[in-house]
Amino acid sequence: MTLAMAPLLLTMGDACGIGPEILVKFWLEQPQLARHCIVVGDPDVMRRALEFVGAKAWHVHVVSEPLLRPAESAVLPVWCPVRLEAGLSQIPVGGVDARSARASVVCIEAAVQALHQQQGRGIVTAPIHKAAWHLAGVAYPGHTEMLQVLAAQLWASGQQALLLPVRMMLTNDQLRVVLVTVHQSLRQAIDALTVEGIVQTLRITDKSLRALVPGNPRIAVAGLNPHAGENGLFGDEEIRLIGPAIEQARLENMDVQGPFAPDTVFMRARHAPPEHPAEFDVVVAMTHDHGLIPVKYLGVDHGVNVTLGLPFVRTSPDHGTAFDLAGTGLASAASLTAAVRMASQLTNSFK
Amino acid sequence: MTLAMAPLLLTMGDACGIGPEILVKFWLEQPQLARHCIVVGDPDVMRRALEFVGAKAWHVHVVSEPLLRPAESAVLPVWCPVRLEAGLSQIPVGGVDARSARASVVCIEAAVQALHQQQGRGIVTAPIHKAAWHLAGVAYPGHTEMLQVLAAQLWASGQQALLLPVRMMLTNDQLRVVLVTVHQSLRQAIDALTVEGIVQTLRITDKSLRALVPGNPRIAVAGLNPHAGENGLFGDEEIRLIGPAIEQARLENMDVQGPFAPDTVFMRARHAPPEHPAEFDVVVAMTHDHGLIPVKYLGVDHGVNVTLGLPFVRTSPDHGTAFDLAGTGLASAASLTAAVRMASQLTNSFK
Repeated sequence: MTLAMAPLLLTMGDACGIGPEILVKFWLEQPQLARHCIVVGDPDVMRRALEFVGAKAWHVHVVSEPLLRPAESAVLPVWCPVRLEAGLSQIPVGGVDARSARASVVCIEAAVQALHQQQGRGIVTAPIHKAAWHLAGVAYPGHTEMLQVLAAQLWASGQQALLLPVRMMLTNDQLRVVLVTVHQSLRQAIDALTVEGIVQTLRITDKSLRALVPGNPRIAVAGLNPHAGENGLFGDEEIRLIGPAIEQARLENMDVQGPFAPDTVFMRARHAPPEHPAEFDVVVAMTHDHGLIPVKYLGVDHGVNVTLGLPFVRTSPDHGTAFDLAGTGLASAASLTAAVRMASQLTNSFK
Repeated sequence: MTLAMAPLLLTMGDACGIGPEILVKFWLEQPQLARHCIVVGDPDVMRRALEFVGAKAWHVHVVSEPLLRPAESAVLPVWCPVRLEAGLSQIPVGGVDARSARASVVCIEAAVQALHQQQGRGIVTAPIHKAAWHLAGVAYPGHTEMLQVLAAQLWASGQQALLLPVRMMLTNDQLRVVLVTVHQSLRQAIDALTVEGIVQTLRITDKSLRALVPGNPRIAVAGLNPHAGENGLFGDEEIRLIGPAIEQARLENMDVQGPFAPDTVFMRARHAPPEHPAEFDVVVAMTHDHGLIPVKYLGVDHGVNVTLGLPFVRTSPDHGTAFDLAGTGLASAASLTAAVRMASQLTNSFK
């Protein structure tokens, strides 16, 4: 069995959030795409989600390993990791629960191990709840850090398991943005900028984007300061750090331009043909909000979060557990669907 | 003659840029709106602009003061300040020229004096060139600083002419943004944030927006840090500065909410009815690019720059002299038209 035939592994996420429901909705709404996917989760939680959505004709089909998913219609294939504790579907939806948090961790671990054993070709993660993880004593602040550690443990070739540098990419129908810094104060983010960190971001971006665009990815780099520093008048990070990083990337034959004024580069990279074809395939932004403000401006319904730099493909919908919607069957599967589609594109040409 | 009948004063800008041409195009394309406007500039430069645009049937009508504009059609009314030097229309378009820079300064001075004498009801400034001003030894870095000084000189009631606090508002069809900090490095902008500076911005915003929206303006405040600081985890400016400023503004009966996560508040304030009516009338942003990235994301064709806090209305198109387009007649008057429309709205209900 070749890797191309291995399914995308869709982890259930927090059993008390909207994750199980939007997975069910995805299967109902996107049968073609879903043929290449399997849920990693608890069968009873997924049966409850079928009820929430009102999918009466459907049933859960439990498989013993991801590669053995069924081909029947109106069937939700679920691979249940052995270490999952019982009774998860008895926990009421809509709130923080430590058992539900631990179960979400078990599913992610199992999925990554399956990826390592070539039983899956990529992972799409339904939302977990960070405060629930904290309550349950989970050591990781979120998905990304956990995936970094698991990747280091499983894929490391040397004696020491070093964390791989990863970057967050946010995408929607019109724009792709990769962030150099993420979850820290704006002051600390500025302090954290280095030539090496920016070059590393450009390398990761260039490598990952090759799966999505023909030829060399056209990378635009946004400056940090107003007008990209106006030749040093409004800050020197463009001269000291960003410019030299771009030079280095060009020496490595990447198609990188900038640093551009932050207030117009995202407009230039917006892809809305035929009137407005993008000038660039992706924008690298120095800070969380320079990058995410334009990605989210037109709405978050189709936003996808992609973790770049891991030894496997990982995408996720760009929203949380939405406890207030859990159990209603009303949550939209649009972002999850976009995440599966992106994972599918990335894995079809992943090297 | 009452102030309401006084015209909007449209300053010519740099004679070598696209300013004169887009003024002509505005008169050709927007006759209704233009009836309430007059050019403050050089008649020969404006005649040359009529030629660039190919408006053969049109001619310039020079008036001796702004209130005496003609009512005929196919006529461009121009008020020529007496101190304007001769020969301006002999300077080739498309480059930096000190005489052209000085002339743009004379027009602005004359227009503001006319405003002070109630011969105009607001000013719309066509683009000047900052490097040309610098070359010509003009003491101001740009329009805004010059207008602040002129306002202090002419409108000051006490002995000392204090600079009035002003703020930059950028608007388009969907979004209004007011900036707390503008042209400095991102580091310096963070250092420059104070409770008083933010409260002042909220007061100026609240007062100015009353001319544009019914009732109390709904003001959203964007945080500085990712997730608006996540309760102090990613920076404390929201707790130390922005939160207390919002509290103060509420004590003064303003409708102010926030601080909100920067990456989603602009999406929420985007006005695209009926699908997406805005939750807020304006967003106050801490930094230049947090505010301008979303305003410019969908394009700058209809962007308008408004200087809030002056004793008069001032708007301008959101672009520069575009030397590469000057003389071709191809530059778009869309942003200038939007700027005139905004000035018209602001002055119709300006108190």
